[in-house]
Amino acid sequence: MSETPDLAPVLAAGWSLSADQRAICKTYRFPDFVAAFGFMTRAALWAEKWNHHPDWRNSYGLVEVTLTSHDAGGLTARDLKLAQKMDALA
Amino acid sequence: MSETPDLAPVLAAGWSLSADQRAICKTYRFPDFVAAFGFMTRAALWAEKWNHHPDWRNSYGLVEVTLTSHDAGGLTARDLKLAQKMDALA
Repeated sequence: MSETPDLAPVLAAGWSLSADQRAICKTYRFPDFVAAFGFMTRAALWAEKWNHHPDWRNSYGLVEVTLTSHDAGGLTARDLKLAQKMDALA
Repeated sequence: MSETPDLAPVLAAGWSLSADQRAICKTYRFPDFVAAFGFMTRAALWAEKWNHHPDWRNSYGLVEVTLTSHDAGGLTARDLKLAQKMDALA
């Protein structure tokens, strides 16, 4: 890793560290597809604005997010920033 | 399955049948996140309109789609209709 960000805030907010410690993951549950995809659309705009994009999957009201900095080979401050933005948007 | 749809058209269009034959899958590749998420947004509007939603994952320009009719326990004509719409939107 090129940076060693402090993970405590996002872990406290319900994110979990992947087994290889190179990514953080969170599952959001919404009442329906409109709510789930609405969240994804808001998050997508910030992701594109910051040029830092999530790996994510969606099934109806469920959105599973994985964040990592592919170019850095692990977690950076950019992941924490996007994680906290996604929490604020959810 | 409550229906036995003719899969030939979607298989010819690059969809593949899952091992348990209850779903069809396709991977779309776009040049960037804007193109990929733009496709997802267009498809999401049709999915919601038809009340038939994809299971899908996205990583930057990649979109992996799985279609099945959960309520029917397998593939129905609704999956083929959405598959063909997604191909038209991609």
